[in-house]
Amino acid sequence: MQFQLSDELLDKIKFLIDEGNDEELLLHLEEVHHADIAEILTEVDVEKATYIVKLLNSQQTAEALMELEEDRRERILEGLSPKEIAEELNEMDTDDAADIISELSLELQQDVISEMTDEQHADDIVELLRYDENSAGGLMAKELVRVSENWSVTGCMAEMRKQAENVTRVHSIYVVDDKNKLKGRLSLKDLLTAPSNANISDIYIPAVDYVNVHTEGEEVARIMQKYDLEAIPVVDEMNRLVGRITIDDIVDFIKEEAEKDYQMAAGISEDVEADASIWRLTRARLPWLILGLFGGLGAVYVMKSYDEALSDFVELFFFTPLIAAMAGNVGVQSSAIIVQGLANDNLKGSLFNRLLKEVGLTLINGIALGTLVIIFGLIVGQPQLVSFTIALSLLTVIIIAALIGTFVPIILDKQGIDPAIATGPFITTSNDIFGIFIFFYISKTILGF
Amino acid sequence: MQFQLSDELLDKIKFLIDEGNDEELLLHLEEVHHADIAEILTEVDVEKATYIVKLLNSQQTAEALMELEEDRRERILEGLSPKEIAEELNEMDTDDAADIISELSLELQQDVISEMTDEQHADDIVELLRYDENSAGGLMAKELVRVSENWSVTGCMAEMRKQAENVTRVHSIYVVDDKNKLKGRLSLKDLLTAPSNANISDIYIPAVDYVNVHTEGEEVARIMQKYDLEAIPVVDEMNRLVGRITIDDIVDFIKEEAEKDYQMAAGISEDVEADASIWRLTRARLPWLILGLFGGLGAVYVMKSYDEALSDFVELFFFTPLIAAMAGNVGVQSSAIIVQGLANDNLKGSLFNRLLKEVGLTLINGIALGTLVIIFGLIVGQPQLVSFTIALSLLTVIIIAALIGTFVPIILDKQGIDPAIATGPFITTSNDIFGIFIFFYISKTILGF
Repeated sequence: MQFQLSDELLDKIKFLIDEGNDEELLLHLEEVHHADIAEILTEVDVEKATYIVKLLNSQQTAEALMELEEDRRERILEGLSPKEIAEELNEMDTDDAADIISELSLELQQDVISEMTDEQHADDIVELLRYDENSAGGLMAKELVRVSENWSVTGCMAEMRKQAENVTRVHSIYVVDDKNKLKGRLSLKDLLTAPSNANISDIYIPAVDYVNVHTEGEEVARIMQKYDLEAIPVVDEMNRLVGRITIDDIVDFIKEEAEKDYQMAAGISEDVEADASIWRLTRARLPWLILGLFGGLGAVYVMKSYDEALSDFVELFFFTPLIAAMAGNVGVQSSAIIVQGLANDNLKGSLFNRLLKEVGLTLINGIALGTLVIIFGLIVGQPQLVSFTIALSLLTVIIIAALIGTFVPIILDKQGIDPAIATGPFITTSNDIFGIFIFFYISKTILGF
Repeated sequence: MQFQLSDELLDKIKFLIDEGNDEELLLHLEEVHHADIAEILTEVDVEKATYIVKLLNSQQTAEALMELEEDRRERILEGLSPKEIAEELNEMDTDDAADIISELSLELQQDVISEMTDEQHADDIVELLRYDENSAGGLMAKELVRVSENWSVTGCMAEMRKQAENVTRVHSIYVVDDKNKLKGRLSLKDLLTAPSNANISDIYIPAVDYVNVHTEGEEVARIMQKYDLEAIPVVDEMNRLVGRITIDDIVDFIKEEAEKDYQMAAGISEDVEADASIWRLTRARLPWLILGLFGGLGAVYVMKSYDEALSDFVELFFFTPLIAAMAGNVGVQSSAIIVQGLANDNLKGSLFNRLLKEVGLTLINGIALGTLVIIFGLIVGQPQLVSFTIALSLLTVIIIAALIGTFVPIILDKQGIDPAIATGPFITTSNDIFGIFIFFYISKTILGF
């Protein structure tokens, strides 16, 4: 039942564009869902994509443009006149239109806005541009259904039908007083079953969750998820109803947040996609690699200072990559669990208990791993004291790595810094140096070189 | 405006439970949102939580129980009789009730179901238990608004009002024929504005997205996100309407998927939370650590076989943790970008171009890093040929690491294996051995030991 973009259809479309056969092209595309139009716009080259956008009516292409990757959308918009862009924006919800317009150059923004025919819509978009992208104001749309507490049920029904024309999905009906201050919400069921001479003030529900225009996106996502809301009204500093945020915008937001944490753990510092330019990818990746390099050079330095062990206990040097790797692995595991616990707000109990648990856990893992190291020593005929020293150092190193991995993200979070930064290269690098130092320190104490 | 669980309130609640002062306890809790009740149930000990669940009516606690972590919920349910559990389930939507019942032992499941007073509800739940947890059947709820194409608008309105009683959120009205086969959907706006003598068959929209009970969860999430759906109907093999999935269930699903990838990258193989038992955490973490250990032991073996270099080029051994770490970091970066591209279905273009781009990118990074190594060598007074050899080996090693990181997830994905498994410890471990081997091989060739 789902649309599948076949190679034949794609070839057909390319052929029709080259031929300039607009009539048949329209015939092929007019029934296609906007999400599938978006897929086609991604698969053909930019010139052809621009051609399609110009050909189809804006109702169909506005939504498709919203689905595109930012890079591709920008390049298509470059091929359109300010008037053509304005036509697309007229068809979009205010929040989407504001997102797109903010990607344009400041000069082009002015030209496009002055070409918009719907004054009110343009006004709304300009208002949204004022808010920080990551705040409730930046996430909200102006489209919503609003009724006054003073209206009668009959008057309300007529007014609502009019408003609903501009709102894709109704979700909730918000009740305001005559100063536009948010008073509560109205259930459609109550409205349908109320006597027609009743007033809205008799039937509305005076309790409603809401956020302020300045509430951060993370907080909006948390509230909407916690209370299972599909839409939440947004008020300004005077408690006036100015917009609403719907769950589909928050889904995108939640996904982006999760992806950011993931990229951070992998040592990628900007939100880049596989198809970003080499330059952007370098900027996102190189800084972490340099950090890792410094960690490695630090380890070189530590080993140099223990080179007196080379004559009698050269095996120790063969084990340094193992020690560094295990310290890194354990550190990343511990910090990932904490980062996720913080993100989901389900980290309960005292810090001390958490550290104690982490030590217990790592002790179990460390004894298992240490046993394997001793078995390996027996197999390759390594002196038993050396094997035992390595196993004991490994155990110590990973316990400390687990503590650092647990402690650092919690501290960062308390300081208001994104704890995800503590995962990945940061933890592995610091644990590299630290781990190797502890390893040689313990070895020297036991073996006495 | 948001509820904040204060320590005072919590102490008050604990005190009232100890006193057995049910009357005042009810007074404090009756107005509290179920999501906040859930927070209280998490903060107090299990006995007190069970006490609260028994005291409050099931309408309030059923939703709160759904919000809890699985472990805590299980322990609270252990304190309830089958009859009490059945009362909770009566208040839940079928999909939630089925999820909870599937967590119980088989014997208890039977007892609970036989205690349920609402036959139809119990029937629906039993039906849902048959489906795989990760399929559309396992995700769907039976609650929905269904109208027949043969009804009149007036009859439909009356019937709908009745059905809507059992459905928390209406979302969409689905139209079926007299064999319950899905025909399309009905817009509330069209229903409100249609003449009352019209038939549903005249006004419904015959096109509707749907999924089959066996469609996988990932695919449902993909379709709902792509087409921005808030609910999607589910049909059986005979195209009969059997349920619907709403976006809030999919939000949880998307989040879990993203978290699974993240945990995989961090070397945690099961979906565990920070508060899981030590035993579960060990099971999730130890296997990856053992994998890492084998990587490290492999590296020991490689270095042993190059020990003839110890006499003249001992510096090489100091650099092995650095080489291993860089190979790991680059490999994880490359694979993370691919895994995310695959998950979001935005990996376009040929494999060859992708590998070429990755090589170009890593060449830039490698030259920058190599230069730093040479500068470090100058500072510490290392023989220049050795520094140059290390820099060149580093460059080679990370290019190969980048290729492995790019290639492996793509191959796994083509084989139908979750590519996320290729990130984290898997990549770092294989790159450890590989990297160190290449490092010594190149060094031997240039330096000739």
